[in-house]
Amino acid sequence: MNYFYLVPAASIVALVFAYYFFKRMMKESEGTEKMKTIAQHVRDGAMSYLKQQYKVVAIVFVIIAVLFAGMAFFGLQNSWVPFAFLTGGFFSGLAGFFGMKTATYASARTANAVQRSLNSGLKIAFRSGAVMGLVVVGLALLDIALWYLILDHFVAEATAGHKLVMITTTMLTFGMGASTQALFARVGGGIYTKAADVGADLVGKVEAGIPEDDPRNPATIADNVGDNVGDVAGMGADLYESYCGSILSTAALGAAAFNLNPEMQQNAVFAPMIIAAIGVLLSIFGIFLVRTKEDATVRQLMSSLNRGVNVSAILIAISTFGILYLLDFSNWLGLSFSVIAGLLAGIIIGQSTEYFTSHSFKPTKRIAASAKTGPATVIISGMGTGFISTSIPVLTIVLAIIIAFLSAIGFDVKNMVSAGNLSMGLYGIAIAAVGMLSTLGITLATDAYGPIADNAGGNAEMSGLGPEVRKRTDALDSLGNTTAATGKGFAIGSAALTGLALLASYMEEVRIGLIRLGEDLMLLSNGQSVEVAKASLVDFMDYYQVTLMNPKVLAGIFIGSMMAFLFCGLTMNAVGRAAQNMVDEVRRQFREIKGILTGEATPDYERCVEISTRGAQREMLLPSLLAILAPVITGILMGVAGVMGLLAGGLGSGFVLAIFMANSGGAWDNAKKYIEEGHLGGKGSEAHKATVVGDTVGDPFKDTSGPSLNILIKLMSMVSIVMAGLTVSWSLL
Amino acid sequence: MNYFYLVPAASIVALVFAYYFFKRMMKESEGTEKMKTIAQHVRDGAMSYLKQQYKVVAIVFVIIAVLFAGMAFFGLQNSWVPFAFLTGGFFSGLAGFFGMKTATYASARTANAVQRSLNSGLKIAFRSGAVMGLVVVGLALLDIALWYLILDHFVAEATAGHKLVMITTTMLTFGMGASTQALFARVGGGIYTKAADVGADLVGKVEAGIPEDDPRNPATIADNVGDNVGDVAGMGADLYESYCGSILSTAALGAAAFNLNPEMQQNAVFAPMIIAAIGVLLSIFGIFLVRTKEDATVRQLMSSLNRGVNVSAILIAISTFGILYLLDFSNWLGLSFSVIAGLLAGIIIGQSTEYFTSHSFKPTKRIAASAKTGPATVIISGMGTGFISTSIPVLTIVLAIIIAFLSAIGFDVKNMVSAGNLSMGLYGIAIAAVGMLSTLGITLATDAYGPIADNAGGNAEMSGLGPEVRKRTDALDSLGNTTAATGKGFAIGSAALTGLALLASYMEEVRIGLIRLGEDLMLLSNGQSVEVAKASLVDFMDYYQVTLMNPKVLAGIFIGSMMAFLFCGLTMNAVGRAAQNMVDEVRRQFREIKGILTGEATPDYERCVEISTRGAQREMLLPSLLAILAPVITGILMGVAGVMGLLAGGLGSGFVLAIFMANSGGAWDNAKKYIEEGHLGGKGSEAHKATVVGDTVGDPFKDTSGPSLNILIKLMSMVSIVMAGLTVSWSLL
Repeated sequence: MNYFYLVPAASIVALVFAYYFFKRMMKESEGTEKMKTIAQHVRDGAMSYLKQQYKVVAIVFVIIAVLFAGMAFFGLQNSWVPFAFLTGGFFSGLAGFFGMKTATYASARTANAVQRSLNSGLKIAFRSGAVMGLVVVGLALLDIALWYLILDHFVAEATAGHKLVMITTTMLTFGMGASTQALFARVGGGIYTKAADVGADLVGKVEAGIPEDDPRNPATIADNVGDNVGDVAGMGADLYESYCGSILSTAALGAAAFNLNPEMQQNAVFAPMIIAAIGVLLSIFGIFLVRTKEDATVRQLMSSLNRGVNVSAILIAISTFGILYLLDFSNWLGLSFSVIAGLLAGIIIGQSTEYFTSHSFKPTKRIAASAKTGPATVIISGMGTGFISTSIPVLTIVLAIIIAFLSAIGFDVKNMVSAGNLSMGLYGIAIAAVGMLSTLGITLATDAYGPIADNAGGNAEMSGLGPEVRKRTDALDSLGNTTAATGKGFAIGSAALTGLALLASYMEEVRIGLIRLGEDLMLLSNGQSVEVAKASLVDFMDYYQVTLMNPKVLAGIFIGSMMAFLFCGLTMNAVGRAAQNMVDEVRRQFREIKGILTGEATPDYERCVEISTRGAQREMLLPSLLAILAPVITGILMGVAGVMGLLAGGLGSGFVLAIFMANSGGAWDNAKKYIEEGHLGGKGSEAHKATVVGDTVGDPFKDTSGPSLNILIKLMSMVSIVMAGLTVSWSLL
Repeated sequence: MNYFYLVPAASIVALVFAYYFFKRMMKESEGTEKMKTIAQHVRDGAMSYLKQQYKVVAIVFVIIAVLFAGMAFFGLQNSWVPFAFLTGGFFSGLAGFFGMKTATYASARTANAVQRSLNSGLKIAFRSGAVMGLVVVGLALLDIALWYLILDHFVAEATAGHKLVMITTTMLTFGMGASTQALFARVGGGIYTKAADVGADLVGKVEAGIPEDDPRNPATIADNVGDNVGDVAGMGADLYESYCGSILSTAALGAAAFNLNPEMQQNAVFAPMIIAAIGVLLSIFGIFLVRTKEDATVRQLMSSLNRGVNVSAILIAISTFGILYLLDFSNWLGLSFSVIAGLLAGIIIGQSTEYFTSHSFKPTKRIAASAKTGPATVIISGMGTGFISTSIPVLTIVLAIIIAFLSAIGFDVKNMVSAGNLSMGLYGIAIAAVGMLSTLGITLATDAYGPIADNAGGNAEMSGLGPEVRKRTDALDSLGNTTAATGKGFAIGSAALTGLALLASYMEEVRIGLIRLGEDLMLLSNGQSVEVAKASLVDFMDYYQVTLMNPKVLAGIFIGSMMAFLFCGLTMNAVGRAAQNMVDEVRRQFREIKGILTGEATPDYERCVEISTRGAQREMLLPSLLAILAPVITGILMGVAGVMGLLAGGLGSGFVLAIFMANSGGAWDNAKKYIEEGHLGGKGSEAHKATVVGDTVGDPFKDTSGPSLNILIKLMSMVSIVMAGLTVSWSLL
């Protein structure tokens, strides 16, 4: 129990530092009156969006919580679940609120500071991003620690090893609150940001021929709000979910794996939390390492950011050995390598994303070159590159899974899936996810830095700060694009590993579901009856026939694969429709408000913000509902085997599809930037116009549909876990 | 044995009718000298392509056959395999040769006949398409019947029920020959046709502003050759593979399921062959039903085609009850419903494809409407529609799987995956695939009709037959587009069901692999040892731990999903590169050969044909190699469990991705046609230009990468089956 207190302690340290960075940032000047006004516009837009979004989400949460309470009443659900569900959602929403508030206060200050030096701008933007990173990890650990203490107090010890299993599987359900919040944040935020962006570009850049972020464009404030809404709040909620999901599923798998060894069971439950806690402290250390000389170049800024992240990662890797050793794991060495496998996988996936999307490398240059034959070849080569770019991340995750599993079971290759090894190996995979996410405090800081820099550029442009300042903000922004790209890869990779951990936890929850329901049925596994409470994961898989030849599993795999595509289609079309409304509005303003284009009249920014907000709220409901209902319906129709197939199929296709969409979109964006830098005819050339088409197509790819898939992967598992009781007690086939 | 002779008999009847239709078509006049010359150009191009392709394929076949012979020498392979492999490839190649020869002779004759009446044109084009359909089913049944007779003569009866298992699993390997041939035909043909098409469009339509099929465009002959190469030979080889694969895997699963009942075992092996044979005869009957009055409208022509297909399908469904009853199946009623489930699934998927891609319906109209805001929104909405369109086919296949399985086991829902039920249920799924493909004789006729009509239009345009004739060929062509769309859906659906049947057969082959290798190891399934020869499929899955929590299975699923995307990417990029070469060549000819655009000089058509041919040959090797090697490498690294995961993941993702690509591509094509018919500004408007971009992007989607996925799905299973011996006797994990 001693080590456990590191968890709340790290949480509080994180929150204190977040507050400290926030206060420091607030002391900076926001610049001229014009800069303040614009920042205020963006802030108001962002807050009004968040308010509207939280209203919708609150209604959904109340409905689901009431349903859970009803299920609990009929014995289909643990009675803690409604409360756990609500706190998960609440803390995630709170993190989004703080993160976005900080980001919207920071952008004008960054633009102002950049006038002094590039480095001052970086520092403000990065430390403000760190507020988001630290609030996310801080609140997540706080929620975990509080629930652990509450449940530890209230849950009774029935049989040895039983209590922790009950506690951890109950805690898993608070992950569903975080998942649901993340769903709306990512999908709604993704639709918002791209409706505004696409709408602004189509009319502003293409039709009216005015530059990006020009104050004459009525949609420009909405566009800047969108960066905060999508890239700060959406990304934060996504990773909040992964962070909680990986820690909680590892704890649940640990409680199950060490079921018969009460002392180690406790440590196995604490291990992921403590690794995460140490990770938070070392991330804060890393954040302080990000500093350079006043006259630093962009390259130096980049290497400074990298230094912060890499030093944190290395120190976490080293500490892991110590933590697992001190926690008395007999195979502490093997498990440490599981953690490191995850940590390394995250870095490799981030690097591969950068390779495929940065215009310093061949793939994106080739896409730019294909612009010579028009937009069609830009789209074809961008998609080709995106498809091919899936191979490295997938092979990396595959390697990480295999290594994490094998080293957790001491390379007992001959009996990989024996009853004991299976539980231990899956614990290894889950803890690899924790390893990957242990640097979240600082990696999320580098992520959230991007939109702040982007908004700073927007602010500088709109307040007419002059080309020199704009050039510097562009430098910060281009740095932000790189961190955003690696951040996206990291988010997808961690979603995949977390999804796997949750998939494994699902069987665990099925077992607990059976125990809870007081099922007197004995598992009849190949003629031998096994008591439910003593059954291993292998027994459960035998009992539910979770083999690849079971038609229910195969049907589930098909449906899961389809879900990923359907979800993408719905979100893409949502962006299309919402952007169309924006286009109509901007055209109307140009037509009806005389003098906008000459700069004599101010456009109606609020109206555009409102259109994006309402569009996002309306459009996010159908895909969200579908993601929540798919596992419930599959469970009711096809039972546990069908659900397992659904999750595996959704994970396989969803992961690959997400990488494809993120990388195609990123590569198109940078192919356009490459031409804008003066290559192949430069800005305004036919080739440039062709890449603008690519960029516009890429917008919903990389910022709406792609990231939303991260949520789908995790949410479907979460819903399945929470609904396990229902699936077990009632299913058609 | 009596009923068996229906199989060679049906085969011969099919080939005789094919010959009859061919001769009848050849009696028609090919029209003016100009028409003859152009047809000769296309014919020469097609044949020179086929010659070149078969050269490359022959080398690959020799290499693989030698490898197989080597493996057989070391006891890793059955010694019949090299020969079976070669005949499978040879017959498939022969079918492609005959089909394409017929198609290239028929197009000018169709154009000429259309001058008389629409109906005369339809009759020639459709009956020529029927040559392809009948040659494919005729040669497939011939190959099956011959090999059955040979093996029945040579294979010795070791133990009761053993002989048929050996025969059927050996025959399965001839499917790999068909698969390998189909791989090169689809991938090479797909690259060829789209390199020519995209190249011709980019320079001709977009840059020079001359219409499609204009004789001044140097790439126009290559474009017309491409239709034959891709849509006739490629499609034929694809379905030849599905046809053989479904029949052979059903036979293998039947031999396994009725292992202990020698009399029924014989019938279970014959059943799929006899259903197919009756299907061939009824398809011929259906072909004769396709006739209308001389002054028929397009709508009447369409309903005439539909009548032919539907009457065949209904008669086959009715006959199935009789066949299975006469073959003494105790659950003949249930199995008949399995067959009908497949038959219906094929029709529903075809209809859904038409809904999502025809401009008579909302989705495509909406894509056309999005052209008002330029090419980017066309791409976004087309992809959104394509993503969403995957849901109906996937749910249809899922329903078909579940129904086929359940009705084959008499709805014994409680014990779906018991040892006996599993084998029987998988037999039901496999025979559903046979049901879907039983109408192939006539459905392939409606497919191959499309490119013939398309080429007839090209011939009419190039020979200057006047707008009235062109209008009629356009009517035929638009009818061909509908049949091509449903045909594509049908090809994908049948690939998915065949892939599932092959996946099931894989375990069977693993078992035989073990027996062949004289493995004395007993299967240790949960503590009980079972003799290999007596082990059930369930035992094998237990032994190899093919459960969803085995990290090797999970890793396999990830890799399988990735393979589908990687394969798409490689083929997309291949088209991009080959098209680029075509663009360069056409530009060079416009520049260097004076008077092309004024019609005073003839362009160098042959050079363009050569460029497409060489491009296709060069570009098809890498993706093909990858498809063949992936299952081998996965098997060596991760054994049977890894391979099963690979196949399931590849099937799930590949199927959904294939539908997405086919439907997006089809919808873009028709959105363009919709505008060309005068909507939204008509030809030459900005909206039209935007849809031209969509159409160009859609070309490799629907005609290269999408259809190639059909092959990937089946080929990976086929390779796994043939390599089972290696995987069983040696793997790293």
